[in-house]
Amino acid sequence: MPGVKLRLPDVVLLFVLGGAAALIGDHSHVVTATTEYYTDAVPFLWSSPLWFPMLVGGATVSLAELRMHLPAPRSTVTVRQGVAGVAVVVGMYVTTALTRGAPVVPATALICVAAVVLWCVLGDGPGAICGAVAAIIGPVVEIGLVQVDVFAYTDGSDALFGVGPFLVPLYFAFGVAVALLGELLAARRAAISAGPGAC
Amino acid sequence: MPGVKLRLPDVVLLFVLGGAAALIGDHSHVVTATTEYYTDAVPFLWSSPLWFPMLVGGATVSLAELRMHLPAPRSTVTVRQGVAGVAVVVGMYVTTALTRGAPVVPATALICVAAVVLWCVLGDGPGAICGAVAAIIGPVVEIGLVQVDVFAYTDGSDALFGVGPFLVPLYFAFGVAVALLGELLAARRAAISAGPGAC
Amino acid sequence: MPGVKLRLPDVVLLFVLGGAAALIGDHSHVVTATTEYYTDAVPFLWSSPLWFPMLVGGATVSLAELRMHLPAPRSTVTVRQGVAGVAVVVGMYVTTALTRGAPVVPATALICVAAVVLWCVLGDGPGAICGAVAAIIGPVVEIGLVQVDVFAYTDGSDALFGVGPFLVPLYFAFGVAVALLGELLAARRAAISAGPGAC
Repeated sequence: MPGVKLRLPDVVLLFVLGGAAALIGDHSHVVTATTEYYTDAVPFLWSSPLWFPMLVGGATVSLAELRMHLPAPRSTVTVRQGVAGVAVVVGMYVTTALTRGAPVVPATALICVAAVVLWCVLGDGPGAICGAVAAIIGPVVEIGLVQVDVFAYTDGSDALFGVGPFLVPLYFAFGVAVALLGELLAARRAAISAGPGAC
Repeated sequence: MPGVKLRLPDVVLLFVLGGAAALIGDHSHVVTATTEYYTDAVPFLWSSPLWFPMLVGGATVSLAELRMHLPAPRSTVTVRQGVAGVAVVVGMYVTTALTRGAPVVPATALICVAAVVLWCVLGDGPGAICGAVAAIIGPVVEIGLVQVDVFAYTDGSDALFGVGPFLVPLYFAFGVAVALLGELLAARRAAISAGPGAC
Repeated sequence: MPGVKLRLPDVVLLFVLGGAAALIGDHSHVVTATTEYYTDAVPFLWSSPLWFPMLVGGATVSLAELRMHLPAPRSTVTVRQGVAGVAVVVGMYVTTALTRGAPVVPATALICVAAVVLWCVLGDGPGAICGAVAAIIGPVVEIGLVQVDVFAYTDGSDALFGVGPFLVPLYFAFGVAVALLGELLAARRAAISAGPGAC
């Protein structure tokens, strides 16, 4: 497709990575009764209807592509940082499940703190934009799905128009981490284009 | 005032920042029944009597001022590090609420670990001094307030002369983070004094 | 002993450090009923039979010695990093106790995330080897001890052949942190050997 910067193998990698993280997190939400599905219209993969990991995988691809269209990708980010960023987001996701039943302020503050620290350690301006886009669209989509009774956040985890308020910092961190993956892929593409003769 | 190094806008910033963090943490303690207030002598702000955020705000100002009188402020600390430090202390504070009811050794060890890691990543010698000052005075003041029945730490959270033993590493981390804010403000003041012509 | 690189004071330090961390973690497991001892054949130290901290202390010495026989010890690692690494492993250990009763996937994922982040921040190739050695031998030994009824992991914490699945990332992180201590001791030994006249 014209204008698309991600190459096919990168798209596959990001899609699978985002989908796999979504499956772990969503299973954690279901098994702790943080969320409950009301649908059996499509087959389930582990604890999730098939479209859930696909939605998150697609969002992962989209956010990385978005980052590649924003200015000033850092060529200094490392694979270690990318892996650590993804790991922290998964850690935040399962923490929102482990704190199921806890009062909303400390539970949400803890996830906000993790999002802030993640950005301070690994983020930049365009990464914050990707984070903000994810922090708006993600919860809005989930609120929509709750409205049409596809699933629900259970009592005590539904303080933000029926969804968990922790979704906002969680999606923000997701956007920041994926933006960093986009920078990594851009840097690798630039290195490959430059060829073996370039320093 | 002669000898005072913080400027008024800095004092206001630190006071509001410390007070706001205190309100979040104290609400978390009250809502999880980690602590209980026995007073209604002054108006409450959210879950705290008005003097509580003011005490913490005042302590924040005092510790930053203390740091500015200690030697060797680092000019290399960044705003990101300052923000991350504050975030981690808030995260530790709410974690002491989220672990309410857990056995005292793992719950306290977790907060000690966070304090040690915070210092290892962001601290220096004078920061440790500010941390130690906070780790002594903070719990002592709280023990005094418990003695005169202003509030109480509930059963299982009162192993240190009636207060939570987690207060020691929590106040230590508070002192370390605020010392870093003091260094940031000192560096900014130095940059402003040097003027636009200086490099 | 020929071929042994650690000096006696280092052995003592590592043994005591590993043993002390083991006592804190094991107490946390016992007090949260994550584990239960069925033995009273030897005296107990706090919540652990005497051989438990000695086993962990011995493992700590062995892993550091192993690291010193692997190539490319980094001379740039700092004492701060070593202390932070040890602290994080203790934090992970007590977290496995604090999440007692939580579903196995989020609880285990959280410890995996911490192990990954620890390696990304502080690890290297040989550190990963030490981590992998620990992640295999540690759980295997514990499974053996469970088989012969010395102790048990309680219901819900026994999904990996009778032991907690969190042991794998916990021992991995232990190996990574101890490898770093080995590098620190090697660097100090090199500095001492070079003598005061060397730069």
